[in-house]
Amino acid sequence: MVTANPILLPELRFMLAEGDTAGLREVAEELHPATVAEFSTGLTDLELWQVLAALPVERQADIFPYYELSRQVELVAVADRQTLGQLLESMAPDSRVELLRELEPELVEEILPLVAKAERHDIRMLLSCPENSAGALMTTEYASLPADITAGEAIARLRSQAPNSESIYYIYVLDAERKLLGLISLRDLILARPTALVADLMQTDIISVLVEEPQEEVVQKLARFDFLAIPVVDDQNRLVGIITHDDVLDAVRQDATDEAQRIAAVAPLGESYLQAGLTTMTWKRGGWLTILFATAAVTTTVLARRPITDPWLIDFIPLVMASGGNSGSQSATLVITAMSTGDCRLSDWPQILRREFMLGILLGLLLAVPGYLLALLYAPTPSAALVIPLTILGVVMLGTLVGSVLPLMFRSLGLDPALMSNPFVSAIVDVVGILLYMSVAMLVLG
Amino acid sequence: MVTANPILLPELRFMLAEGDTAGLREVAEELHPATVAEFSTGLTDLELWQVLAALPVERQADIFPYYELSRQVELVAVADRQTLGQLLESMAPDSRVELLRELEPELVEEILPLVAKAERHDIRMLLSCPENSAGALMTTEYASLPADITAGEAIARLRSQAPNSESIYYIYVLDAERKLLGLISLRDLILARPTALVADLMQTDIISVLVEEPQEEVVQKLARFDFLAIPVVDDQNRLVGIITHDDVLDAVRQDATDEAQRIAAVAPLGESYLQAGLTTMTWKRGGWLTILFATAAVTTTVLARRPITDPWLIDFIPLVMASGGNSGSQSATLVITAMSTGDCRLSDWPQILRREFMLGILLGLLLAVPGYLLALLYAPTPSAALVIPLTILGVVMLGTLVGSVLPLMFRSLGLDPALMSNPFVSAIVDVVGILLYMSVAMLVLG
Repeated sequence: MVTANPILLPELRFMLAEGDTAGLREVAEELHPATVAEFSTGLTDLELWQVLAALPVERQADIFPYYELSRQVELVAVADRQTLGQLLESMAPDSRVELLRELEPELVEEILPLVAKAERHDIRMLLSCPENSAGALMTTEYASLPADITAGEAIARLRSQAPNSESIYYIYVLDAERKLLGLISLRDLILARPTALVADLMQTDIISVLVEEPQEEVVQKLARFDFLAIPVVDDQNRLVGIITHDDVLDAVRQDATDEAQRIAAVAPLGESYLQAGLTTMTWKRGGWLTILFATAAVTTTVLARRPITDPWLIDFIPLVMASGGNSGSQSATLVITAMSTGDCRLSDWPQILRREFMLGILLGLLLAVPGYLLALLYAPTPSAALVIPLTILGVVMLGTLVGSVLPLMFRSLGLDPALMSNPFVSAIVDVVGILLYMSVAMLVLG
Repeated sequence: MVTANPILLPELRFMLAEGDTAGLREVAEELHPATVAEFSTGLTDLELWQVLAALPVERQADIFPYYELSRQVELVAVADRQTLGQLLESMAPDSRVELLRELEPELVEEILPLVAKAERHDIRMLLSCPENSAGALMTTEYASLPADITAGEAIARLRSQAPNSESIYYIYVLDAERKLLGLISLRDLILARPTALVADLMQTDIISVLVEEPQEEVVQKLARFDFLAIPVVDDQNRLVGIITHDDVLDAVRQDATDEAQRIAAVAPLGESYLQAGLTTMTWKRGGWLTILFATAAVTTTVLARRPITDPWLIDFIPLVMASGGNSGSQSATLVITAMSTGDCRLSDWPQILRREFMLGILLGLLLAVPGYLLALLYAPTPSAALVIPLTILGVVMLGTLVGSVLPLMFRSLGLDPALMSNPFVSAIVDVVGILLYMSVAMLVLG
């Protein structure tokens, strides 16, 4: 996230007031684009456009993606159309599409004619990739070479292409139909004899992703092989783009936050915590809370129909419920994180259920012991006290079962396993747990 | 995680049996080291060492770090000492230390004399960095140049240094005391006029981390600036190492899993879900469950001392508890994830508490409405039914308060905020919530 950095702000305002274009340009050239964004985000929209206007458009395009997305949208709304068209043409294809995805479709249609035809085609292609697919993360800016030239020629060509930023470090070797033949790193090109053929230098054991593959797959491959970038191909193995390490890192961090929030029954905020409005927040939390409330209301109905009357049994209601809920949350979180990191897959379900069944018994027995000791203090007889450890064993086993089955079920339905959030597991365990409690009590106490 | 891939396994075994060293070498040269590790991890330890022995030591060193850490430890245990020394000398400094950190200190002391003196010094330095510091993530392999040479000379020097893998893409410019003066990318070197001076080409607005800075800081900087690597300096700005993008990605993924597990009251497994033994699992889950059980036991004591006697009030116990627990889990998770992504800092606490206070009121009112409607069905009079919405408003406010204060408190004590896991928040809310419930009931019902 880019937060306003107050240090340079007064200086920027002073330079603007003085019309010191040279000064602004110097500051913007010397600092990292992310730092310039950080320093200038405290300006008003109009001031900010004035600062950007002092810079060459390539520099504007470097800086712009470092503002928060919501700020970028604001800035677009007040922008001069001409300036906006030029800026979009110069921006990296992935940053550009990330921004356009946030705008109203009507606004996008209004803006697109301002962009050159080739770029427009590129934008439409990237916009058409479904969210959460590899295509939605990729950029169309990459370095490519044919296989039949020498290392020396290759370096000369790269010099003239001068590809943007870091996409120069992996060079993709393509045939006439843009099919992916191999990969050569800039390091290997530099170290090679200048007369060696690219075809002999390139690696041919290429790991790529399909444009429609889920992003999870991209993350796992890039992380496993420690790549700087991973090529994205269509179903005929033609190169359509690359996904770079920085975009994968951003995606992983965002996904981790979203997942933790989903597990706790918060619809992912999609913006930073302090910037989300109170209405958004109430909605994203309240929706789930209401659903959970409805589920919990079932416990009231169950208790009202078949009341627990022994006062000492009433005293144990929260304890019994908590034991089941806690073990359920543990199982759900373990299964969810194991699936999202690729540590286990849906097909591992028999092994997962077997493990959680065993753990349910072990953990249930572990908690049954203090449960029995505590019950001895309140129950009329030692044999009556047995209700508590037996129920605890039952609800803990129930918790591990529900906690592991539900994420697996959701995954098999093609849904996000994290959606089956921990509080929901607890809610189910609460209802079934109360029924179990009453049944055990009736059985033991007669 | 590297799972056994069965496709090549029989072929590998066949080549071993035939003593086909050339074949093994060819397979290992053509495939990515991660793929070789994946294919061969199904072999026994001895077979695996036979495969490795067929390869040049540099290739062994590339492949070895791609086995699971626990497997690496196993392999070390049965290794021939001579082979092990050579392997460790060739391994990347960060992978080597990652492995050594897993071994018993006595074993490390036994192994170290097998390694050349310079490498031994390097290992001891890296081992001395505290876990979770920038130093513990860094590698000491990087490319460096003086400032007073030309781009052409720089490329020639890089060719002769031929630095390992990807550390060639950012070249650090150092003075005679190894102080960090600037940074130049290989791209800029290649594109520059060969006669241009490195001093004129290099960027001097360098973002670095201190060797003792927490890894969270490293992740935030690298992610914000989209770097391939970030330099690590000591307190005199001398370069001591670099941290590369792939290690940051691994750390982020591991931290996300650990954090989600901590939030659900599981001590981080440190290994993959399916590979963790049942005993480890019982211990890592059971410890927290027992602590939570003890906390929940307080609710029993409270209820036993000041019993709730109206049967209809008893029916609402689980519902009231769940409402407080769920809103508390939401707040805790939001605050924890916001702090770990850098979206907010400890100093933002007044704003956080203000937000959560407001949200407590809004969400409390939201749930109070269905709560009142449900209570009307069971309460003797409409005014008696007011106990339920009033209590719900109270416990939801309590939940948001406890859920946001506890992670902040833990952070201010220098502890991991995620440790204050959701079930623990629920446990506290349960106890205080029951007291609140009884107080409201006495007040309203007289």
